Amino acid sequence: MQKTKSMSKINLGLVGYGTVGSGVAKFLSRRKSFFKNKFNTEFVIRTICDVRQLENVRGLGKARLTRKFHDILNDPKIDIVIELIGGLHPAKEIIMEALKQGKHVITANKAVIANSGKELFQLAKKQNRHLYFESSVGAGTPIIKMITEGLAGNKFKSIYGIINGTCNFILSEMTQNNFSFGQALAEAQRRGFAESNPTLDINGMDSVHKLAILAYLAFGKFIDVKDIYREGITHISHADIEHATSLGLTIKLLAITKKENDKIEVRVHPTLISQDHPLASIHSIYNAFYINTDPQGNVLLSGEGAGQMAAASGVISDLVNFVSRGDRATLPCNLYSEASGLKIRKIDQIKTKFYIRFMVTDKPGVLSVITGILGKHGIGINSVTQKAHNPTATVPVIMLTDFTSEKMLRLALNKIDKLPVVKSKPVAIRMEKLL
Amino acid sequence: MQKTKSMSKINLGLVGYGTVGSGVAKFLSRRKSFFKNKFNTEFVIRTICDVRQLENVRGLGKARLTRKFHDILNDPKIDIVIELIGGLHPAKEIIMEALKQGKHVITANKAVIANSGKELFQLAKKQNRHLYFESSVGAGTPIIKMITEGLAGNKFKSIYGIINGTCNFILSEMTQNNFSFGQALAEAQRRGFAESNPTLDINGMDSVHKLAILAYLAFGKFIDVKDIYREGITHISHADIEHATSLGLTIKLLAITKKENDKIEVRVHPTLISQDHPLASIHSIYNAFYINTDPQGNVLLSGEGAGQMAAASGVISDLVNFVSRGDRATLPCNLYSEASGLKIRKIDQIKTKFYIRFMVTDKPGVLSVITGILGKHGIGINSVTQKAHNPTATVPVIMLTDFTSEKMLRLALNKIDKLPVVKSKPVAIRMEKLL
Repeated sequence: MQKTKSMSKINLGLVGYGTVGSGVAKFLSRRKSFFKNKFNTEFVIRTICDVRQLENVRGLGKARLTRKFHDILNDPKIDIVIELIGGLHPAKEIIMEALKQGKHVITANKAVIANSGKELFQLAKKQNRHLYFESSVGAGTPIIKMITEGLAGNKFKSIYGIINGTCNFILSEMTQNNFSFGQALAEAQRRGFAESNPTLDINGMDSVHKLAILAYLAFGKFIDVKDIYREGITHISHADIEHATSLGLTIKLLAITKKENDKIEVRVHPTLISQDHPLASIHSIYNAFYINTDPQGNVLLSGEGAGQMAAASGVISDLVNFVSRGDRATLPCNLYSEASGLKIRKIDQIKTKFYIRFMVTDKPGVLSVITGILGKHGIGINSVTQKAHNPTATVPVIMLTDFTSEKMLRLALNKIDKLPVVKSKPVAIRMEKLL
Repeated sequence: MQKTKSMSKINLGLVGYGTVGSGVAKFLSRRKSFFKNKFNTEFVIRTICDVRQLENVRGLGKARLTRKFHDILNDPKIDIVIELIGGLHPAKEIIMEALKQGKHVITANKAVIANSGKELFQLAKKQNRHLYFESSVGAGTPIIKMITEGLAGNKFKSIYGIINGTCNFILSEMTQNNFSFGQALAEAQRRGFAESNPTLDINGMDSVHKLAILAYLAFGKFIDVKDIYREGITHISHADIEHATSLGLTIKLLAITKKENDKIEVRVHPTLISQDHPLASIHSIYNAFYINTDPQGNVLLSGEGAGQMAAASGVISDLVNFVSRGDRATLPCNLYSEASGLKIRKIDQIKTKFYIRFMVTDKPGVLSVITGILGKHGIGINSVTQKAHNPTATVPVIMLTDFTSEKMLRLALNKIDKLPVVKSKPVAIRMEKLL
């Protein structure tokens, strides 16, 4: 018979008791006996800090309540601080102070890792503590662990991510239910998949933060979020979705990072991909990560990337990671070793193929003028489609270009936009051929 | 400035130097400086054991060569034994002896974990050593780590896996390139994706071993591989693929395990799923795992599940896991705690919908006889399709049933098979509605 080791007790301090915080408490309470039986561990929420009155909140058990986070940071009995308030400040200061006080930290905060990860990982290393952040990208879909542990040793070549559930929901609804952008956004809000102010989701900023974290983990370079190219989904119309579908393509908001020699690309923009590709089947609020590594090849991971219990699941996996690893072990996602000499390739220098929709007056010669201007800018055309014909109305013309630089495309489109026969600003969407 | 810790040196003993073993050696040699810089660790292959002459093999470095595995097991300087010979014996004895000698073990051996995992995990626990087996399922696609660590704490409800690359390649070629089964198998062999004797792949046995491991990890119950229902892909014809496609469905060899209250299902068989589902987009030699957990929801993981460097990638991730975890930590995938009271639901008791193809003489009244027999067995019909009409020939009739038990279906099909108008054994393929 095995000797039974005595039960470990881990004291937690929760900073922030909103949606995710209460999800963590619920998860721990539901699975209490599982953690005892399997990991011989009892997780105790010792203190909860929130700026709101929590006295009447149910399900807090014996946790002490406070509005001052120093009550947690200064408590020597607390082993792990779980930071769930979001935003850069004071989250960063709370994490730093916790590490200095000798506590391990779990956070779900993408802004703080994207903006200050370098400093925080260095501090964690100095203090010999762990900083876990699984829920910061993809919530409970374990992408951080997959990149830093599951595929450890591989060379990363590219990551294509659908990393904003709100945008993916909107584009899916536009594609599958023929919704306009506005209808799809309203539906997302009605179902709780979009904030009442959805700006940071639909303008791509949320994806930018998450992409900064992925690029660091994959390539070992922290990238200033200001250096990440960003384009949201507000200019995508239902017409574009229909044209894309008829061409065997699907529009997704992709976060893309690639490395080639000493150059890396980091960009967030709507992207046309083949309907055959597994990423095209990722619908609704799901996130997905399509990663190319050497020698493992392509790996796809997908799951719900938001929501109370999904985010809680990521925090719980961090807790289990800590328990199974112990105090003094090395945490792979904290190993800070910046790749020297890596440079960011600016969006101007990146060549992709483009889908372009022109709204034009339907008369002879229009196509030849437009293709002429494109040709003068060195932009090859792979296909031209004009389905509707109506000499008295504006009709869409769809062109798919060959590889061209952003810069030349913008120059050409500016000229074309000024033609009297072109009736609204041309819409250009990048295409990616995923292997 | 940080203190630089002295470099760790980990001595490895490789048992088996075939495709995967030489892949591991290649991987370690290519990424030597990466492991030094990031993990402050040098992995040294101290001894290689193989039954073949290795003296003239290139790239072995300073490794000592032996044909006796005891030279590795008895060497006190070896920290980790990497077992890559496959098959149950003597792999099991080598792993047990290594653990008893105080060594950690990494194996890529599905047979030994599926058949003897329980005994091996108990021994590893007793010896306070680690037994890693990431490559045993999905090769370098990190499914073991995802189930045992990434989704730790979640309750597992079901796993649907495409876990045999050979079968997925064959079915993909039949679907995409209109190949017959025989042509697709020959193509798989030509491209090195199928063994010269492909029996264990195409009869589902390889998937059965891997499913036993997944079911244990998800539900905490070791299942005798003999208790896993198994049906291969040899009876799938190109006609079935075509009919499936026209119905918006795709045929995949799925390994399925589900838990409902105290009953679990474990079965491997060709399965019709909707073309919309992400698993339907998993083509060629790729593996995929579609996992439903509470509360994280559905998670999909996919990657190459076989091949020299993919399998080596899984072994390397085990090595990094060991390095980051340290000698005395707990390895979640070794935590042995068998769920008591769980019972296996026999295939007879499992209800699914079925696709059935009958080859019949095309004359009036045939459909009514067949549907009459199905009806008497309580089998409802959701749709009947007969596309071709030719009174002088045998034509296919496709029926999709409502939920029915395996047992009633077999009884009904046996009766129908005896009708003079039915010209060949009816083909029945289960359908699953994946959420």
